[in-house]
This record gives sequence, structure tokens and C-alpha cells, in this order.
Amino acid sequence: MELFYAYEADGRTCRLDADESGHCCRVLRHRAGDEIHVIDGIGTMYRCRLTDDNPKGAEAEVLEAFPGWGGHPYRLTVACCPTKNNDRFEWFVEKATEVGVDRIVPTIGERSERKVYKTDRALRIALSATKQSLKSRIPEIAEPVSVKDFICHSEPAEQAKESLKLIAYCFEGDTKRISIQEALRSFDGKDVTILIGPEGDFSPEEARLAVEHGYIPVHLGASRLRTETAAVLAATAVYLHFE
Amino acid sequence: MELFYAYEADGRTCRLDADESGHCCRVLRHRAGDEIHVIDGIGTMYRCRLTDDNPKGAEAEVLEAFPGWGGHPYRLTVACCPTKNNDRFEWFVEKATEVGVDRIVPTIGERSERKVYKTDRALRIALSATKQSLKSRIPEIAEPVSVKDFICHSEPAEQAKESLKLIAYCFEGDTKRISIQEALRSFDGKDVTILIGPEGDFSPEEARLAVEHGYIPVHLGASRLRTETAAVLAATAVYLHFE
Repeated sequence: MELFYAYEADGRTCRLDADESGHCCRVLRHRAGDEIHVIDGIGTMYRCRLTDDNPKGAEAEVLEAFPGWGGHPYRLTVACCPTKNNDRFEWFVEKATEVGVDRIVPTIGERSERKVYKTDRALRIALSATKQSLKSRIPEIAEPVSVKDFICHSEPAEQAKESLKLIAYCFEGDTKRISIQEALRSFDGKDVTILIGPEGDFSPEEARLAVEHGYIPVHLGASRLRTETAAVLAATAVYLHFE
Repeated sequence: MELFYAYEADGRTCRLDADESGHCCRVLRHRAGDEIHVIDGIGTMYRCRLTDDNPKGAEAEVLEAFPGWGGHPYRLTVACCPTKNNDRFEWFVEKATEVGVDRIVPTIGERSERKVYKTDRALRIALSATKQSLKSRIPEIAEPVSVKDFICHSEPAEQAKESLKLIAYCFEGDTKRISIQEALRSFDGKDVTILIGPEGDFSPEEARLAVEHGYIPVHLGASRLRTETAAVLAATAVYLHFE
């Protein structure tokens, strides 16, 4: 099943941008009259009939709408410090999208080696992984923000009555950590936020601030994981928990 | 903590090959008398004193041995069909090693696009990921084998009284599948084998043969995952289950 992304979908007509139109009408040679499947990127898949096969701006008429198509029964934000090697962070974006994530926030920690992150490639990867894994909602890739600002200003989604906020870190000290599964088991909501630190871990100040703001310190088991592996493992733990 | 791999370790002396010796003595400039940490690749980490800093063949005297260091409380074999794009399979080898796997078997299915697989790069990746994730045991990378031969000839490890054998596939049909977590919960042994199919899934014949040989059909949740993502997710589910 091939999915196309519509930048505009009003429930009757879907409009594809130049990239998607080229792929649909030039590469895959779809012609007006063909049935195609289109996602709006915000949670609905449409079965459509192609009405204009212009490879620079195709249009399709909606035959049937599938709201919530390919969705998951939780709302997950992963705030993760971009890795020194960009490929590794992009791999996390791809895999977390496949597994099921709603929002990815690149956060810059005090010990982050990478202090600047551009979201354009991650946006393309998230779109591609969304289509490949047959989902209709593209995860939001937020603009980068400092770990401290994220902790102080992030609020649960409006529809969520309560949110489980977790911080995964490795720091030594007296702070008691529980496993991520234990934290999930003791929560009966749907809204989860996980904060994953940079290669050099969170600073003690960031960790303290997170706990003050209601973040629960968790560990991800006995293995020492790279930043991007920890981020995908955390998303997987949430996905498996809500299965 | 930096780990070096000894191709020979008899409990008193550890010998490093040219690659490891060069990294230890030329790149990191360790000199005779320095304390270093060495793994034997089969489950023991040694605290050592470098006695010969030859960058082509270094030797170290064992001061203390840590058997079982960085190990995990299960024995996991992942038999996975190599992906068309080699990078994706190698990524699985790296991530499964970080999380914790004992044996990786590249299996060639009837519908595999890739019919040939060379293990040399995977061996290097497994070694590197073992050291990076602070483990002492390098997962075995088996020589490729057909899916059918794997099903018919693989036996649980000798020390395992019983083994949980799982096959993850997507095929449509009447076969009832349970979730991988459900399968794990109903098992009280430690030896788990998971079979992951190629992009085109297992053939009905392979699926039938697996079930005949005691494999339990499982699903990995609602998301449609790429081969390598499915393989890492399955390893993660086992890791989290035994935490």
C-alpha cells in the first residue's frame, strides 16, 4: 500500500505538493481516475480518486475517510538531546516514528556536544517513516529548546487530564530510580513525556530541576545504551505497555 | 571506561591483536604499567596491567577477573532475514548488541531479496557495540542459513531445559497470533529464539514448518515495522521482560 501526503485536505479534496505529485504521477505513473490513498498528516487517511494528475500539483477527490487510521492508544512526547553524530538522531526519529510517537523535541543540555539542531531533515524522515509504517499522523518535530526551558515550560496536551513525566538518566548519586516499566504500570493515563539526555548525561542542576517539576527518574535496565538507543527503547517500552 | 578485546585470555595473561594493540598503545598511548580493562568476548572482563605496549601485539597481566560482567539474565537468539539494504541489518546488529542478544543468525527466506550475506562487517559491528555498551560477551554472528534449515536444525542451548521459540510475521490467514509479551509472560525459562522474516514476509510453507516445529506465531503490536525495526523491537521486548 502506497500512501501520499496531502498538504491540504478539507474532507472533499486532497492536494499534493510538487514532491508528492511528482512521485505519484511521474514516478508511479498514476493517472486521473486512479484510486490512491492519501494521508493528511494529522490523523486521517483518505481513499481518493485522482482528478488532476499534474506532476507538479496533483489533486484527488475523497471517496472515503478513515479518521484515527494507524494511530496508537497513547500520546507520547520524546524530548531527546541530539547526538554529536546527526545520523544517530535521525535514526531515532525514523524508528520512533515507525513504533509510534507523537512529538519529538530536540533538547539541548548543558553537557550536549551538539548545541545547534536543524529540524528540516528530521521532518522529511518523519514524513517518510509515517508513510512507510502506514500511519496517518506525522509526529511533530518541535524546534530545539534547552533542557531547562523544556522542563519549565512543557505542559501535557490539553486533552490529557494528567501526564506521566519521566527522565531517564545514568547519573550517580542518591536519587532513587525505578524502571520505566514500573513507572508505566503505576500510571493509568495516556499522556507520557520522556526526557533523554545527551552523551554526557544531564547536569545535576538539570536533573534537580526535572525532579522539582514532577519528572520521575527512571532507568532503562542494566545495559548501557547510546542516547539514540535509549530514546528508541523508551518509546518501545511505552508502545509495548499500551498494547 | 575503555575496553579492549583480547583474542587470547587464559586468566593470567591477555593478548591483544594488531587492531586492539594499535588502538591501545598508539592511539590512546597506553604504556607498560598502565591499568587497562580487557574483555575476552565470552563473558569475562579483566582488570589488567599492561606488560608489553607493542602496538602490533600488546600483552597485559590479569589483576582481577569479573566473570559474567555486563551480562543479562536470559539467552536470546534472533534469527533475522538480512535486509535488501545492508546498513539496515547492520544497524539491527549494533542495536540488538547494545540491548543484549546472544546469537544473531542471518536467515535467508524464500521471499528474501537478499540471498547472500557476508558476516565480516557484522562481526566488527558486534565487537564494537559490545565494548561501547560495556559488556564482556560478544554475540555470536552465525553463518547464514535458510529459514527452513534454521527451523529444522536449531536446538536450544544445551544448558537450557526448555526454549521459547517465536516467529513474528504479518501473514494474513487463520493462524492465531498472540502478542510477544503474552508469549513471554507464559514462559518461565530463560532461552528465547525469535525468527523475523524478510521484507516480503515468510512464505506460507516456512510459516507452516515453523509452527510444526513448535514455534509460536506472535505479533509485535499494531505498527507495521520494517524488518530491522521488528528485530530490535523483539529483542527489546525480551530485555524489558527479564528486567
